[in-house]
Amino acid sequence: MKHHRTTLTMNVPARMDFVNITHDVQSAIQESGVKEGLCLVNAMHITASVFINDDESGLHEDYKKWLEELAPFDASPERYHHNRTGEDNADAHHKRQIMGREVMVAITKGKLDFGPWEQIFYGEFDGRRRKRVLVKIIGE
Amino acid sequence: MKHHRTTLTMNVPARMDFVNITHDVQSAIQESGVKEGLCLVNAMHITASVFINDDESGLHEDYKKWLEELAPFDASPERYHHNRTGEDNADAHHKRQIMGREVMVAITKGKLDFGPWEQIFYGEFDGRRRKRVLVKIIGE
Amino acid sequence: MKHHRTTLTMNVPARMDFVNITHDVQSAIQESGVKEGLCLVNAMHITASVFINDDESGLHEDYKKWLEELAPFDASPERYHHNRTGEDNADAHHKRQIMGREVMVAITKGKLDFGPWEQIFYGEFDGRRRKRVLVKIIGE
Repeated sequence: MKHHRTTLTMNVPARMDFVNITHDVQSAIQESGVKEGLCLVNAMHITASVFINDDESGLHEDYKKWLEELAPFDASPERYHHNRTGEDNADAHHKRQIMGREVMVAITKGKLDFGPWEQIFYGEFDGRRRKRVLVKIIGE
Repeated sequence: MKHHRTTLTMNVPARMDFVNITHDVQSAIQESGVKEGLCLVNAMHITASVFINDDESGLHEDYKKWLEELAPFDASPERYHHNRTGEDNADAHHKRQIMGREVMVAITKGKLDFGPWEQIFYGEFDGRRRKRVLVKIIGE
Repeated sequence: MKHHRTTLTMNVPARMDFVNITHDVQSAIQESGVKEGLCLVNAMHITASVFINDDESGLHEDYKKWLEELAPFDASPERYHHNRTGEDNADAHHKRQIMGREVMVAITKGKLDFGPWEQIFYGEFDGRRRKRVLVKIIGE
């Protein structure tokens, strides 16, 4: 069994945005030498997501609006208990639960085993700081 | 390490519906010969889900109503930016995020290692076309 | 390839609550002897979740309020079809979909490969009974 680990460093200038990391994950798979196996890609921070969907900017705008409706940003201590601790990012902890922490992807013949439109995104909900994504690969 | 890959073909006549694929996944595990390992089951399309819950038709009705409230179908270009591209399925991209893309299941003694009521479902949110589910198994 | 399986028994006195199980998962990894691999942690019941977020009590209060807004408890047969079967826990089946069934975590050098604030939680949405969490580890 082979294993391989790498991290990607993200630095998103906006509070909320999505970054296509598909190419970085494919590069990690190539580095690993794994031809058949599984690849875990997860946010290492709890106000960020990794998810798979479409690389279409209109859809990303829709997601931002929808997530803001489901869990609005509100730095005041009234809406969120979490923001009574001095934090202002309670909304980000909620948004991340909707979009998910991680994806597991299959590796087949050394490549991401994907459907026609699948792309991997980093979802940032409390940006303007350095964060990391973990890529862990096992297989042979 | 053994590995095995198969795909299931789905063709759901409704726009939104759920299909129990537990038996198909168990068959793939038997084909693989893997006794101890992990099995990834994921939708290969970004307007569909794979999730684990109860095989109870009333609950499935509840899910459909709830998902329609959280992300209503609206083909017009007003509500969703994505539907300004000529698509009408922006709602399906949202519903899939709530229900999830994939499940990871444990294989123990050659079987799905499940609690008493766990069943695997394909969730379709933009049906009336052929789609695929990927099953990837690793173990020994 | 090594593999290891254990279950955790949960008995949450409240209908809804969150329990930090990070230490139990780390213990299972130590027992397994796996230094490099993957670890699946999933609820074996369909009205419970396993998720990763912050161990901050204010945030947990926020989650409870938010989940109650997204999928209110209502034992009557009017709101949820599922509760016409004699059950009263349809809301719990919805809350679990928001928070997720499972997490996959990387094992590196024999430890959970985590960011600074990542903690694993069991999320109970229909408690006051005994339930189980599955931990399945593969690697070497």
